[in-house]
Amino acid sequence: MVKTIIGKSDFIESLRGKSATFMLAISNTKTANIDGITQAGIPGKIYLTPTLDSEFVCIGEVRSLGDVATTSKGVPTPALMTRAVHLGLPFGRIELLDLGLEVKPKIDYFTTHSFGIESSGSIDSGAGIDAEALFEKGVEFGQGYNCKDEYIILAESVPSGTTTATATALGLGYDAKESFSSSFKESPKSIRQEVIKLALANISDGDELFDILGKVSDNMLIFNAGFILGINNRIPILLAGGTQMACVLLVVDSILKLMGGTIDTSNLAISTTKWVYEDTQSDIESLLNMVSFPINGFYVDFDFSMSSHPALKLYDDGEAKEGVGAGGALTYGLLNGLTQEEITRVVEEFLG
Amino acid sequence: MVKTIIGKSDFIESLRGKSATFMLAISNTKTANIDGITQAGIPGKIYLTPTLDSEFVCIGEVRSLGDVATTSKGVPTPALMTRAVHLGLPFGRIELLDLGLEVKPKIDYFTTHSFGIESSGSIDSGAGIDAEALFEKGVEFGQGYNCKDEYIILAESVPSGTTTATATALGLGYDAKESFSSSFKESPKSIRQEVIKLALANISDGDELFDILGKVSDNMLIFNAGFILGINNRIPILLAGGTQMACVLLVVDSILKLMGGTIDTSNLAISTTKWVYEDTQSDIESLLNMVSFPINGFYVDFDFSMSSHPALKLYDDGEAKEGVGAGGALTYGLLNGLTQEEITRVVEEFLG
Repeated sequence: MVKTIIGKSDFIESLRGKSATFMLAISNTKTANIDGITQAGIPGKIYLTPTLDSEFVCIGEVRSLGDVATTSKGVPTPALMTRAVHLGLPFGRIELLDLGLEVKPKIDYFTTHSFGIESSGSIDSGAGIDAEALFEKGVEFGQGYNCKDEYIILAESVPSGTTTATATALGLGYDAKESFSSSFKESPKSIRQEVIKLALANISDGDELFDILGKVSDNMLIFNAGFILGINNRIPILLAGGTQMACVLLVVDSILKLMGGTIDTSNLAISTTKWVYEDTQSDIESLLNMVSFPINGFYVDFDFSMSSHPALKLYDDGEAKEGVGAGGALTYGLLNGLTQEEITRVVEEFLG
Repeated sequence: MVKTIIGKSDFIESLRGKSATFMLAISNTKTANIDGITQAGIPGKIYLTPTLDSEFVCIGEVRSLGDVATTSKGVPTPALMTRAVHLGLPFGRIELLDLGLEVKPKIDYFTTHSFGIESSGSIDSGAGIDAEALFEKGVEFGQGYNCKDEYIILAESVPSGTTTATATALGLGYDAKESFSSSFKESPKSIRQEVIKLALANISDGDELFDILGKVSDNMLIFNAGFILGINNRIPILLAGGTQMACVLLVVDSILKLMGGTIDTSNLAISTTKWVYEDTQSDIESLLNMVSFPINGFYVDFDFSMSSHPALKLYDDGEAKEGVGAGGALTYGLLNGLTQEEITRVVEEFLG
């Protein structure tokens, strides 16, 4: 069952039965190399996470490493849920957005959109992104994009992306300090806060929007803001993510304010997991209330209560919450007839 | 689950979720009238098999006869599996390729492509096919074909087709004597070998490629080789068959060598049943290794272990293996979320 956070259920109900292109934006920010800032991946090989996630979602194998990425506490990647939905009730197709990777996924046949984007720097010393050029690439891609299905599920895999998202929202002036999620149950606040503080300290008084983004943000947030504006309501987009995707909306909001523009967002929505929605350490609802355009927000009433697998109980304990479009994928699955039990069984099979 | 015989899993994974046109090439060769050469049909009425198969796949009835074609030992046609998949998770559409039939199927509304092709003669006395003209018809059809789905599943129903395929491969000079399958568990080797020997004896020293094909081959093999070359990688094609479809690739290979041409086969693949893959009397893998272009080959990990129906156990005992696109249809079904159990139950219902 899909529940409404903000707006009305009509948008998500209208997607029932429609085919979707699952578009996975993958990117590295060197912010993830900071010790202890994220548990989204294998310690020392966090940079591989978007590569491995995209391989697993597309082909069910992780060719760039022996095993599926698990966090240090053994929380398996949310890509397992996305893949389970795709096996049970496939997306129309999966496409990849290469937004700057250390290691390219080893996959043939799947459309990968590349833009010559390098992975971004660590925000504690300035991300070093040419934000305006990157944003323009997103706009152009959105303007020219031909969707072969009826809507787009836009997902991401960007390790330490909640840290860069928090820095971005704060850097853009949103009162969002307590609204962001983390892949940790107990958000590693001291490290994150220190990194965010260092990132924000790099902003100078005269910096304008794109200067700020270039210093404290990540490629996914900036490119996808452009992509959404380039699509300009022409194709329905379901943002599949939690606080990071909410931050994409804040970036869109800031750019619209800067340009004095408006946007029809009737075909734009976000859907996330119950773990994000119920997280007491973050507040996606407040983030969605910060944007000045109407937005439909949903979460999917899915958990692992039907499983006794210890690795999956960690999700229900709040150790991992979202990523690789899990919330949007589960939304798609449940909207189209898959059950929590069916998805749970397939995820359990992946874990052996 | 779909497993890889040759190549990589990426091609088949990329088809997950995509709609397919199931195209069934149906043809008679009088080779099938030779007593004891095939069990693909009703004794004395073998010539009806492609007609009945196409009726059953399209409309679930056999209008040209009272009962579904069964072999003399009671093995039901593999069309049951193809139909079961189509009921559980329909193909985008089914189209028929009439490549020379004794009796036209009694079906309305389904697109049937006709080319004025007559059924071919028995290869023991020369098939009497104008192979070059037939090949050209295939090329033209491929060049002009407008696929309404995202890929083509190309299947066949040609009784005694493994005999003509073996003669074709040997006639073209491939070292393939032990590589071909038969619908019999114990291939009726003496009869088949005698027929193939007679067929090959009709080849004269000066015969060129199309002369040889015209004597020892069948319409399906020749036309589909042209069709593949006419499509020229423009549309993904999944060849749904075992050793007969592998022989189509050998024909393509021979024609390319004759013409000194090359072909991009990145959008061409074959998928068959586990019964063909595991058959000890034939070797599809060796056939796929004989072609000089890259090819992706798969088999579907489906059997009737979930059934206790005696007629279906005959498949698992190796009495029947493939045909009417069963392997490709099962591949499509499992790729898109059907389970072995669901398909088995529907096939059992057909048998009453």
